[in-house]
Amino acid sequence: MEFTVSQVAELIGGEVIGSGEVIINTIQPIEQATEKSVTFLSNPKYEPHLYTTKAGAVIIRKDLEIKGEISPVLIRVDDPYISFTALLEAYDRLTSIQKTGIEQPSFIGKESSLGKDCYLGAFAYVGAKTKIGNNCSIYPGAYIGDNVVIGNNCIIHPGVKIYAKTEIGSHCIIHAGTIIGSDGFGFAPLPDRSYKKIPQLGNVIIEDHVEIGANTVVDCATFDSTIIRSGVKLDNLIQIGHNVEIDQHTVIAAQTGISGSAKIGKYCIIGGQVGMVGHIKVADGTKVGAKAGINRNTKPDQELRGTYAFDARDFGKSYVVFRKLPAILKQVEELEKKLINLAKNQHSK
Amino acid sequence: MEFTVSQVAELIGGEVIGSGEVIINTIQPIEQATEKSVTFLSNPKYEPHLYTTKAGAVIIRKDLEIKGEISPVLIRVDDPYISFTALLEAYDRLTSIQKTGIEQPSFIGKESSLGKDCYLGAFAYVGAKTKIGNNCSIYPGAYIGDNVVIGNNCIIHPGVKIYAKTEIGSHCIIHAGTIIGSDGFGFAPLPDRSYKKIPQLGNVIIEDHVEIGANTVVDCATFDSTIIRSGVKLDNLIQIGHNVEIDQHTVIAAQTGISGSAKIGKYCIIGGQVGMVGHIKVADGTKVGAKAGINRNTKPDQELRGTYAFDARDFGKSYVVFRKLPAILKQVEELEKKLINLAKNQHSK
Amino acid sequence: MEFTVSQVAELIGGEVIGSGEVIINTIQPIEQATEKSVTFLSNPKYEPHLYTTKAGAVIIRKDLEIKGEISPVLIRVDDPYISFTALLEAYDRLTSIQKTGIEQPSFIGKESSLGKDCYLGAFAYVGAKTKIGNNCSIYPGAYIGDNVVIGNNCIIHPGVKIYAKTEIGSHCIIHAGTIIGSDGFGFAPLPDRSYKKIPQLGNVIIEDHVEIGANTVVDCATFDSTIIRSGVKLDNLIQIGHNVEIDQHTVIAAQTGISGSAKIGKYCIIGGQVGMVGHIKVADGTKVGAKAGINRNTKPDQELRGTYAFDARDFGKSYVVFRKLPAILKQVEELEKKLINLAKNQHSK
Repeated sequence: MEFTVSQVAELIGGEVIGSGEVIINTIQPIEQATEKSVTFLSNPKYEPHLYTTKAGAVIIRKDLEIKGEISPVLIRVDDPYISFTALLEAYDRLTSIQKTGIEQPSFIGKESSLGKDCYLGAFAYVGAKTKIGNNCSIYPGAYIGDNVVIGNNCIIHPGVKIYAKTEIGSHCIIHAGTIIGSDGFGFAPLPDRSYKKIPQLGNVIIEDHVEIGANTVVDCATFDSTIIRSGVKLDNLIQIGHNVEIDQHTVIAAQTGISGSAKIGKYCIIGGQVGMVGHIKVADGTKVGAKAGINRNTKPDQELRGTYAFDARDFGKSYVVFRKLPAILKQVEELEKKLINLAKNQHSK
Repeated sequence: MEFTVSQVAELIGGEVIGSGEVIINTIQPIEQATEKSVTFLSNPKYEPHLYTTKAGAVIIRKDLEIKGEISPVLIRVDDPYISFTALLEAYDRLTSIQKTGIEQPSFIGKESSLGKDCYLGAFAYVGAKTKIGNNCSIYPGAYIGDNVVIGNNCIIHPGVKIYAKTEIGSHCIIHAGTIIGSDGFGFAPLPDRSYKKIPQLGNVIIEDHVEIGANTVVDCATFDSTIIRSGVKLDNLIQIGHNVEIDQHTVIAAQTGISGSAKIGKYCIIGGQVGMVGHIKVADGTKVGAKAGINRNTKPDQELRGTYAFDARDFGKSYVVFRKLPAILKQVEELEKKLINLAKNQHSK
Repeated sequence: MEFTVSQVAELIGGEVIGSGEVIINTIQPIEQATEKSVTFLSNPKYEPHLYTTKAGAVIIRKDLEIKGEISPVLIRVDDPYISFTALLEAYDRLTSIQKTGIEQPSFIGKESSLGKDCYLGAFAYVGAKTKIGNNCSIYPGAYIGDNVVIGNNCIIHPGVKIYAKTEIGSHCIIHAGTIIGSDGFGFAPLPDRSYKKIPQLGNVIIEDHVEIGANTVVDCATFDSTIIRSGVKLDNLIQIGHNVEIDQHTVIAAQTGISGSAKIGKYCIIGGQVGMVGHIKVADGTKVGAKAGINRNTKPDQELRGTYAFDARDFGKSYVVFRKLPAILKQVEELEKKLINLAKNQHSK
């Protein structure tokens, strides 16, 4: 597919500086952009690329001062990053095959309903008494249990499994293989050291604009609800235990695990492979480095690192010394020897 | 659904102290219980809640002495926790939609059989020569390969994949997306530094009363069997390598990985995100803290922590000092300076 | 199934020393081999077993000198490990049920094609404009999106989900539940601290002879491609972020996570539960111990360990001292006391 720079600029409401007739057929990062690509410059760190890029067109800030010779046509906008994202969305719509309607065979249980303009893929299963809103895509092989509610404009990718009683808001995306509402890990120890299952009767509530990656698991609550609030973004292969609550606009990277009943605040940024023990409160704006283990409540905007995490900078300092430990041990042993000699000398005087 | 306290008490064989006519419509933890809830008190730590709870009814120990004024009706039983769990089970049965029969389309291969009172969901696949016992629920989109044997009263949740030759006992629950019997990770290095696959010909054996969480993977053995013994409980996103054996009533939390040929004893409690190297023996009753790495055999009832785990308390002591390392390094450097001064002074005397 | 030792030897091109008429019906490791098993001896470490094994036949190196009395028939070959693997493959073919043809119901979209001798299981879904080569097995419940290309001789296990535009070479195996091509985790922070999704327009390219374990996730690139080169072997539950590239014949153990845009070289050996930050270059032949965190570029053939990994041997030395830290702290405190005493004495002289 080919576009002129003018068409691209019109789509994102930008002003063209140079020839609007230049032909564009792809979108690329500024370092790799070739003649027929449009790219963008947002981070000032990358500004030098502006003077060397081979891109056909670059989206830049309205007020960016040009300090040298440049070859691409410019498209000036308020926020290049946002405009570029809008462009990607438009490109995505144009280049992917749009799915609509109900493919067969699929399964819809009793007293369930799908809204307008939905796609239900083949081998998708919708249980009984389930309500799905308008403009939702339920991909092939997805499973949606009984008494589930899903809002509008949601994408449920192939093979997602949603247990009964789950509630999902609007504008949510759930990637392939993710499980929502599986039983929490709750067992009562018996006198003979075996375990008895504690039935998990609660559900999962997911609010609006939530995106969940692939093969992640969100367990249902024992009673009540495991809650993922608006705007939360979860990566792949994450474990969310029963009764966890994750507040608005928190992002969590891949393979992190949150144990039962932990409450995570708003605007947190949690790295990959992090673990959190149960029943803690992670304050708003907490930042957790990859691989950290959080075993206590945190303070707002605290940055944490380490297997038993503490302040990220202090951890860094301790780790620097950890690397030198063999040398330090030697130093201590030599100090001891010198001290003994010194004591001997003192004594002999 | 509504019940009287008398009905609840009858169900769990308890004695009512107060009005049996009080109406109950939900089950909640004691801190959150409202007027129409039944709750329980088992852990003495929570006893103060007994005197403040708004619950309609509380299940308590037969011999618990009441030390103040209370508002709820009491139901006295031998073991409140167990009675409460029984109540949850009954509630679960009453409030969830019971599935029975064979939904269409589903697939049953040649020479395979399902026992009495089974549920086979739409898009579920049963291979050839496979035997499934009585009262099993195979949810939509589950896959059960050829030559599989499953006992009675098992629940196979949506999208579970069970490879050929797997043997599963009775009263097992496997949650959505879990894979049983995938090939072990076995490759022979070739002289050109590429790898040749070693066929994985064994199977997985799962005994009775095993529960496995969602999106967990249990690999088959190279020959022989990977074995999960009776009563084992595995959480979500766990990796069980080929030829592993996990003995009775061991529980393992989410995202833990057990490498090939490790043997885990009975009654172990393994935290989340733990890793174990291959070919080790973990003794009965071993307790492993979250995120630990176990790289050698353990002793019975040992408690372990740390990336290269050792005794949990010793690890705790080392970690306390790790946090102080920058200060200790400074202390050592100052000692050295003082010692040099002292030596100079001694020399000058 | 029963075979004579002669038949086994013929299959792998070996020379029989002893009676070729001995009957074999199974394959086992040398320590566990019984009368009717064939086994092998490759690693000299296991040679003592040769003189005690009860195996009916043992495959050994052509030039291995026999130093004692032995009971099994011998089969002499160039490379016992490779021959044994070939034997396992033959056994696997003979003992498993071969699948062919297209089971119903399955789904094949418009303008898609399957090559010769393919198996397409029931409830498998093939999107539009997708090309699958010859002799491929697509198991039940697998999903292959639009515009996908798959080469010859591939095995796609049950429930694998392959997003649109993925390209897969020949001789690849992908295990159950694995997701290929899910969206990368890319979000632009907005001024109100919410996040805007960055469309992920790229794809995943998997070359030849790649094996990927169960419930692993490989995200697509933002633009361009996430690339898994020839001969790479990935274990279960691994996370591969967007724009990652893994070069030839690198092996990665279970539950490891590679963040976006990291480039992993050839012939690397990466342990389990390892984490790698984004945008780094891991050099050819890098070896990473289990649970390590790699947060910078590595040098060829470097061996690394530790949460913030450094040289494996140095890490080992530091960790030994870490275990002794409480004792060392005590030693430092005592040195300090002695030094104070010494200073006092000096002063008092």
